[in-house]
Amino acid sequence: MKSIMLEKDIAKKGIVSGAVKKIAKEEDINPEELAKKVAEGKVIILKHRGKYLGVGEGTKTKVNANIGTSPEVCDISLEIEKLKIAEKYGTDTVMDLSTSGDIDKIRKKIIEKSNVPVGTVPIYQAAIEAIHKKGAIIKMDEDKIFEIIEKHAQDGVSFITVHCGLNLKSIERLRKNPRKSLVVSRGGAFLISWMISNEKENPLYKNYDRLLEIAKKYDLVLSLGDGLRPGGIIDSTDSAQIEELLTLGELTKYAWENNVQVIIEGPGHIPINEIETNVQLEKKICHNAPFYVLGPIVCDIAPGYDHITSAIGGAIAAWKGADFLCYVTPSEHLSLPGIEEVKEGVIAAKIAAHAGDIGKGIKNIKELDFSMDIARTERRWEEEMKIALDKEKFKKLRNKFPLKNKDVCTMCGKYCAIKIVKKYLGTKVIC
Amino acid sequence: MKSIMLEKDIAKKGIVSGAVKKIAKEEDINPEELAKKVAEGKVIILKHRGKYLGVGEGTKTKVNANIGTSPEVCDISLEIEKLKIAEKYGTDTVMDLSTSGDIDKIRKKIIEKSNVPVGTVPIYQAAIEAIHKKGAIIKMDEDKIFEIIEKHAQDGVSFITVHCGLNLKSIERLRKNPRKSLVVSRGGAFLISWMISNEKENPLYKNYDRLLEIAKKYDLVLSLGDGLRPGGIIDSTDSAQIEELLTLGELTKYAWENNVQVIIEGPGHIPINEIETNVQLEKKICHNAPFYVLGPIVCDIAPGYDHITSAIGGAIAAWKGADFLCYVTPSEHLSLPGIEEVKEGVIAAKIAAHAGDIGKGIKNIKELDFSMDIARTERRWEEEMKIALDKEKFKKLRNKFPLKNKDVCTMCGKYCAIKIVKKYLGTKVIC
Repeated sequence: MKSIMLEKDIAKKGIVSGAVKKIAKEEDINPEELAKKVAEGKVIILKHRGKYLGVGEGTKTKVNANIGTSPEVCDISLEIEKLKIAEKYGTDTVMDLSTSGDIDKIRKKIIEKSNVPVGTVPIYQAAIEAIHKKGAIIKMDEDKIFEIIEKHAQDGVSFITVHCGLNLKSIERLRKNPRKSLVVSRGGAFLISWMISNEKENPLYKNYDRLLEIAKKYDLVLSLGDGLRPGGIIDSTDSAQIEELLTLGELTKYAWENNVQVIIEGPGHIPINEIETNVQLEKKICHNAPFYVLGPIVCDIAPGYDHITSAIGGAIAAWKGADFLCYVTPSEHLSLPGIEEVKEGVIAAKIAAHAGDIGKGIKNIKELDFSMDIARTERRWEEEMKIALDKEKFKKLRNKFPLKNKDVCTMCGKYCAIKIVKKYLGTKVIC
Repeated sequence: MKSIMLEKDIAKKGIVSGAVKKIAKEEDINPEELAKKVAEGKVIILKHRGKYLGVGEGTKTKVNANIGTSPEVCDISLEIEKLKIAEKYGTDTVMDLSTSGDIDKIRKKIIEKSNVPVGTVPIYQAAIEAIHKKGAIIKMDEDKIFEIIEKHAQDGVSFITVHCGLNLKSIERLRKNPRKSLVVSRGGAFLISWMISNEKENPLYKNYDRLLEIAKKYDLVLSLGDGLRPGGIIDSTDSAQIEELLTLGELTKYAWENNVQVIIEGPGHIPINEIETNVQLEKKICHNAPFYVLGPIVCDIAPGYDHITSAIGGAIAAWKGADFLCYVTPSEHLSLPGIEEVKEGVIAAKIAAHAGDIGKGIKNIKELDFSMDIARTERRWEEEMKIALDKEKFKKLRNKFPLKNKDVCTMCGKYCAIKIVKKYLGTKVIC
């Protein structure tokens, strides 16, 4: 077996690795403290072609964008375009969730073209190959799952979603605690179908050691999936969801003993007043492992605007301690996102992460906001545009109506409050 | 003087008025309890052409959309279109902030065409007329301010923003506690200029009794403005802002003694972790008068997306007790909004209000979300579209890519998690 230095192992030995140094510099935090957090599992390190990304306590909240083909829309160039626009607007990672076409080829292409760490959900490919080769998901071969996982790792995938906490006991919990929204995780649905029809335990749970061996071989980060996240606020924070989380807490400790880095995935659909509870529960049960939430979406009446419902949830989650936000696009619940929806999704998630980081007290996080505030007071429009998250939209909206007076905007025009008041208050109130 | 029955007076006498009954029915709350809250000033009643709207504790969080001409863009038909699209997407009120053209005519037209209560900021018209007739804001006539206020009330305006808390003491406080973002309230800027150059107290503060007399004559609701709200998170929750709030608390009590209904306006730009403090402070200092916030915007780096930064802030504010959200459009800080931006702004604010109301525990507020969750699980797409806040966008996104299989969507296609899992889990997990 190939032997590489595992970041968790290095950190546990009290060594500050090159990756930790680079991340500490990037995040403007103390390298020794960061190494300690890596050792404790509070921070994980994603590697991608010589670059490093830290996710977890004390680092800036990160954003992931899901891309990839679907059975209905299979166009690799479209997916590369999505990758590029997601990067342009600041996504920290992408996940290739392709479920059609030459999945191996698409993944390799995305890894090749990506400047940010790439994640995948290997069970998709295992299930789809079972359908193609054997006619049904339930005929999926156990060994095949692990072979595919290793292939993804070999290709350079940085992290994989593995629904290891979804075991027979959790299905029993689901049966005893009926829910309306069933199961909305695709990986979860594939595995549940397989488990029930084969009357067997989830291979990713039963053979967790085999998974850990692969992870150790490549220092692959395991993102422990939430196959039982509820599909609507009607079932939020229910017993099946928490049952799975309890198992993930155990699997986290076991992974750490094996020097494997883990992230914990979380919901999904959570009313605004249950988000803090969900974050706290994850941090307690999973021993402060980084928390990776999907959204969360805070209400279900706004399909077409779930980038907004999830920006609300994501900002609160980040503020309360979530470390990693999976974006949700306006297309959620409706269709595969196109380029524009990917852009909208990334921007909304970046706003949520930033707003959350301000609340979380991340060092120097308000500097850009403060620069914007000062530029606005002085009406330095070019400077404002430079700071803006989306410079094109800034320009487009600023020029929406004919701009007669370039010193102000078309909202207040000559009645610009700042301009008027400055004359009378003078510079005395500006420190 | 014309004498009308004042809602606050009726409620204080223990009578449940017709307006209270209608609002209680609409809000599905107890009429006697509502009347008590009106008596206590916790809820105010806006009247508009025989219809009533309740704003305050225990009622659903309401949304306001600002429309109106600017010196740069003056097109009354555009403003009526904005009114109509704002109504279509569920705004509860509109404010006509026109600052150019025939302001009287525009206001009358908006009141005539509006199906929701209309608010205004009369000081705009007073200042603009002073510029037109006398060449400068600082030459604004004190009597004229009150004449214009009465004209607005006569025309049928339901509520007016009056910056009564902005007095010489608060300007002193501003000088002693310098801020970077100066003053961004237009009404505030007009009054500060006038006060400083004339070395006189704010007429709306000094002659508050005169204002109350007008309000009593028409049962006009006073929205006590926050002329000193900071213009960026760099100055959030500062001394000048709180000084003004302290005065508003005193003016609230005095208005109540005169049976005048008041709303308190609040910021503006607030980091996510200061929102609860701002709401609590308003509720304490202003004796639980309804709180009307502008946004709040939680970070300043996303011009073009301030409908999202304010949806985050608005949702949290509503959850923590704010009663009324003034929308912010994508055009904020950049230009006068167009039709599309008004639509985006209203939808984002409605989402924020709804998400906040879920957290606040408003009765039956989750019913529509639950209906959506069940319709999704059963893939009843037509039903989902009916519930959706924006049916057109639902349809547009659902059909973004060719829909081969109408039973699912183009995200997962035949790998639809719900469809797969239902087969194996059966109906047992659905209660």
